[in-house]
Amino acid sequence: MLSKNEIKYIQSLCHKKQRDETERFIAEGPKVAEELLQSTFEVVHVYATKAYIDKHEHFHFPVTEISEAELERISGLQTPNQVLVVAKQKQVQQSPVFKGQLSLVLDGIQDPGNMGTILRTADWFGINQIICTHDCVELYNPKVVQSTMGSITRVNVWYEDVAGVISNAAVPVYGALLNGQNVFEVGKIEEGILVIGNESKGIRDVIRQSITYPVTIPRIGGAESLNAAVASGIIMGAMRNAG
Amino acid sequence: MLSKNEIKYIQSLCHKKQRDETERFIAEGPKVAEELLQSTFEVVHVYATKAYIDKHEHFHFPVTEISEAELERISGLQTPNQVLVVAKQKQVQQSPVFKGQLSLVLDGIQDPGNMGTILRTADWFGINQIICTHDCVELYNPKVVQSTMGSITRVNVWYEDVAGVISNAAVPVYGALLNGQNVFEVGKIEEGILVIGNESKGIRDVIRQSITYPVTIPRIGGAESLNAAVASGIIMGAMRNAG
Repeated sequence: MLSKNEIKYIQSLCHKKQRDETERFIAEGPKVAEELLQSTFEVVHVYATKAYIDKHEHFHFPVTEISEAELERISGLQTPNQVLVVAKQKQVQQSPVFKGQLSLVLDGIQDPGNMGTILRTADWFGINQIICTHDCVELYNPKVVQSTMGSITRVNVWYEDVAGVISNAAVPVYGALLNGQNVFEVGKIEEGILVIGNESKGIRDVIRQSITYPVTIPRIGGAESLNAAVASGIIMGAMRNAG
Repeated sequence: MLSKNEIKYIQSLCHKKQRDETERFIAEGPKVAEELLQSTFEVVHVYATKAYIDKHEHFHFPVTEISEAELERISGLQTPNQVLVVAKQKQVQQSPVFKGQLSLVLDGIQDPGNMGTILRTADWFGINQIICTHDCVELYNPKVVQSTMGSITRVNVWYEDVAGVISNAAVPVYGALLNGQNVFEVGKIEEGILVIGNESKGIRDVIRQSITYPVTIPRIGGAESLNAAVASGIIMGAMRNAG
């Protein structure tokens, strides 16, 4: 049974201001909850239906059993799904290390679904460093968290002065641009930074200047552009898997 | 100035039942509107703000100038954007032709954003035939239309008994499955069908049986799966652009 105050508190975490102040965030559904519970994130509280609790006997975290109706009230999902977790936000302590691995830079990604999906895809391809410009959508936005499908637990994300970071990185910088090299002909990339630009404006000038290897997904048909998450996925796939 | 009845009518088109009955659909924003206005779709009515109308002098379609407040009322977008078009749905007259080209089959794609994004990506890679199972999300769902970003005007979409269609197609059938060949090693595909499965359940048995070439996107990191639109994009990219 949830108190009015608890309901209010959980609901308030869908607002960035409240998330910033409390350094908390919410994650929902068995898949994402499971990943968080098994990660190094500090889980503050688990709110779950009886069905979920019965299937998961040994919780190391405070748990409150709630009804479907209560879950409906605190959930941000269209279809609430068994469990909602409140967890503590994590600041990555170390600085990114660019030598010897492929990292991602996101320049002004606005759509939470794109952001989360890019994290998920990066995780699939074994990329676990993402540096974001300060105007990218916030990592702990509930829609970002949900669309990572748990990859938020494995990928380190920084919000930084990207132009400065890149210029000190001392590795090749690839960027998704028009008129670059066909990304399917670039070959396998073991080390470097891949820059992905904003959904409509692309990569801003100050960052574009640092790109040493522009890469392009050749267009065959009529669409004017690709979705940013799809484009990132295609480029990551080509760079990781080219023969 | 819009009448109450007009407002009601336009709003009703966000419901599938009403779309089916009237054979109409709505599309919003300058980019998608522009593509529709220049396509073979029959545009029934354009509702646009003064700013939009001033920039587009010669309309061949009925136009009503509306205020921002009116647009807000009829729009399904979070941020209404200058113009809303009501158009007539189109049934593709001819049957799909499988010889000599790459076509897509979608098996139970549920998310409208995924569906629209897959259309957009297919269009980018010059794939203009998509055959959907009957339980795929409806093409004229407003979220599908919006996320095609206009590609709905260039890609033909059928809803069919997919298993039957495939078994008569007489071309190679590729499918996104686990334990298939690395899609980056399959080589360029000029002819065939690529099957993409449901977001969580994958490809159903009766369709899976017809797949002659299972293909897989190799996983390097920790994510359990890829977003369906991203996975489709990576496979289409690899099949179109492999050396």
